[in-house]
Amino acid sequence: MKKVKKTIKANVSPFKPKFIKNLIPFGLNFFSFHAGFKKKKNDLLILIFEKPVNVQCVYSLTSTPSAPIIWDKKNNQGKCKALIVNSGNANAHTGRNGINIINKYVLELTKKIKCKKNEILVSSTGVIGEIFDPSIIINSINKINKTKSVDLIEAAKTIMTTDTYPKTSIKNVKIQNTNINIYGFAKGSGMIQPNMGTMLVYIFIECLLNKNQLKKLIRQNLENSFNSISVDSDTSTSDTLMLFSTSNKKINLKSYKNFKKLSIAVFELMQNLTYQVIKDGEGISKLLEINVVKAKSTNQAKKIAFSIVNSPLVKSAIAGEDANWGRIIMAIGKSYEKINQNKIKVSFGKNTVCKNGQIFKKINTKQLNRYMKQKVIKINVDLGLGKFSKTVFGNDLTYEYIQINADYRN
Amino acid sequence: MKKVKKTIKANVSPFKPKFIKNLIPFGLNFFSFHAGFKKKKNDLLILIFEKPVNVQCVYSLTSTPSAPIIWDKKNNQGKCKALIVNSGNANAHTGRNGINIINKYVLELTKKIKCKKNEILVSSTGVIGEIFDPSIIINSINKINKTKSVDLIEAAKTIMTTDTYPKTSIKNVKIQNTNINIYGFAKGSGMIQPNMGTMLVYIFIECLLNKNQLKKLIRQNLENSFNSISVDSDTSTSDTLMLFSTSNKKINLKSYKNFKKLSIAVFELMQNLTYQVIKDGEGISKLLEINVVKAKSTNQAKKIAFSIVNSPLVKSAIAGEDANWGRIIMAIGKSYEKINQNKIKVSFGKNTVCKNGQIFKKINTKQLNRYMKQKVIKINVDLGLGKFSKTVFGNDLTYEYIQINADYRN
Repeated sequence: MKKVKKTIKANVSPFKPKFIKNLIPFGLNFFSFHAGFKKKKNDLLILIFEKPVNVQCVYSLTSTPSAPIIWDKKNNQGKCKALIVNSGNANAHTGRNGINIINKYVLELTKKIKCKKNEILVSSTGVIGEIFDPSIIINSINKINKTKSVDLIEAAKTIMTTDTYPKTSIKNVKIQNTNINIYGFAKGSGMIQPNMGTMLVYIFIECLLNKNQLKKLIRQNLENSFNSISVDSDTSTSDTLMLFSTSNKKINLKSYKNFKKLSIAVFELMQNLTYQVIKDGEGISKLLEINVVKAKSTNQAKKIAFSIVNSPLVKSAIAGEDANWGRIIMAIGKSYEKINQNKIKVSFGKNTVCKNGQIFKKINTKQLNRYMKQKVIKINVDLGLGKFSKTVFGNDLTYEYIQINADYRN
Repeated sequence: MKKVKKTIKANVSPFKPKFIKNLIPFGLNFFSFHAGFKKKKNDLLILIFEKPVNVQCVYSLTSTPSAPIIWDKKNNQGKCKALIVNSGNANAHTGRNGINIINKYVLELTKKIKCKKNEILVSSTGVIGEIFDPSIIINSINKINKTKSVDLIEAAKTIMTTDTYPKTSIKNVKIQNTNINIYGFAKGSGMIQPNMGTMLVYIFIECLLNKNQLKKLIRQNLENSFNSISVDSDTSTSDTLMLFSTSNKKINLKSYKNFKKLSIAVFELMQNLTYQVIKDGEGISKLLEINVVKAKSTNQAKKIAFSIVNSPLVKSAIAGEDANWGRIIMAIGKSYEKINQNKIKVSFGKNTVCKNGQIFKKINTKQLNRYMKQKVIKINVDLGLGKFSKTVFGNDLTYEYIQINADYRN
């Protein structure tokens, strides 16, 4: 293939949301810098909590984790005073050098803000395999005193790579007359597939939560949010989700009802960020929602749903606004799951296309073609076997995806 | 995404081979017709053996097999007098109707050539889910007496779908002073991933082979040929390989040496057809050869090799002639295999790019960039763990792939 012209610029996702500006979560400050990983844009975020807070993290299950993941896992013990995130360089597959780089810039910050090494967390996102000079981060650390805190949107902007918009979300929940704000921001648009995608996600909950409560919130909500999307079936070396408890506000969370209320609010925020990530999938022109119902198990439903959402043939048909349901049958088949082909029912939105093992006789072609022109395409698959279901999200496969990825490093 | 212009025509693969014309395998005739599945080109092949021959078949492991696969599996008992293959309609996910259609046209052929139903085999390739009138095949069956046999190339052309060239291969092997010809033809260019890809493959061996010998030849040779390629990770509903023994020439195959000689010849022919299939992968601009060596098991090597060859990010980087080895590290990681990241060595051809867990310090960028412009790109991954290896083949991900697949049915 010929080289992609460098002057072509990727379009902004058609799903770009509206933003609320000037929000800064309670008890912390965001410092945003241009360290030099990118040519012009800010690329280094240093987040400092007023006091050390409780935190729990989840990382990519990849066999080739980045240096920040290795470093965090080794050092952090559930307390956090500061977080350093850079974009433009993933510090992945950098061996002992990558770890040494982190040690150097972390040491500088511990001196600057007087905290322990194990109270600092780090993340990196960008190109894999390139070593960098830690002094570019250290120079910024030395400017913290003279720098003003930015808001959530600016924080999210700083950690963007191929993202076309910053991803932020806020949620308020009232538990026993106490108002609790939950704030989140994230990045991610390529290498997105569980577990978890090139996603960096940071969530701040304004109440006191211990280690087990934070873990439980992750366990209850990750599977149906960030672990249910796929942009391109590729899993990053750097995926990270961090959940912080940023206030000492005490609420009775031993009450099942109270905890559930909080958990639902956290889920809604995570789901909102999930949608923002998938809607900014590289080259997206259409959002895909795959609903697999009446499966024999959740696992079966999930396997089939991901088989569909990751199929290049399904994805490129959707890009072409073609209701090519035969490819959905193919994708169900390549899951190798034990099913009964004659019980499958497939519909695009409300438009049934096949049923009882063959084409549906009353397809309303006009209505179906109109549906395929929409921005959100729902593919519903009824397996007619059991009572389990799974919904996953993805996007179409377009020229823009290839444009972005054939020439990413130039 | 906007509709692809219908006037744009996909390019012929840069790997199109040279053909030997006027070959017809011993003991059979190929009849090629324009039945009407396609607008202009021939789309129906009827192959008739002079006498019933021994045959063994392998089919797609898909959970949604096509009607021809269901029909063949139910009826055939290892003897074949005739084979009917149509292109342009896969007769897949057509339920009971699909089976009835086959029964009708098979019945007509049994009457015409006086054989049993279970001596006929059928295959179909093309669009999934569309029912057709069997009379268009029956009309052609009635013309057989007035039709001349075509050669191997024309037979291969008749069963093409998005293929840009017909795929044929011949091989000669001398065993104990007996010359044995092996002929093969195949189709396939999209939905290619084991097991086995949208491939139809027919191989004719000019000597007497019983059921067990045919099975053994398949078992020994399928894994490292057709089951080691991937165009787009999508598996078809229709994959079929048929191995025919087309002559009564007797050779002593109880001799280990003789059987091995024959098996190697069959493998070389299968490998040749495999290359032709992958080199005609939809939208291909570059052929990828992934060699994973020093793995803990063949299965580990295979899993990692397919993880690389199926990664959209790796494939689009190759299309852009970018030696983005970080994505190879990512793809190794998303196999979730237990490996030691610090032992990985990756090279493009002879150009090492990373070693000992980090970037190789002496990358010859000029030489590497020149290598990336070649048509065949070899990615070598040394895991430094054990003694097992696996080679798989694939292709890059280009605008043309999307062009072909966004608008396939129009």
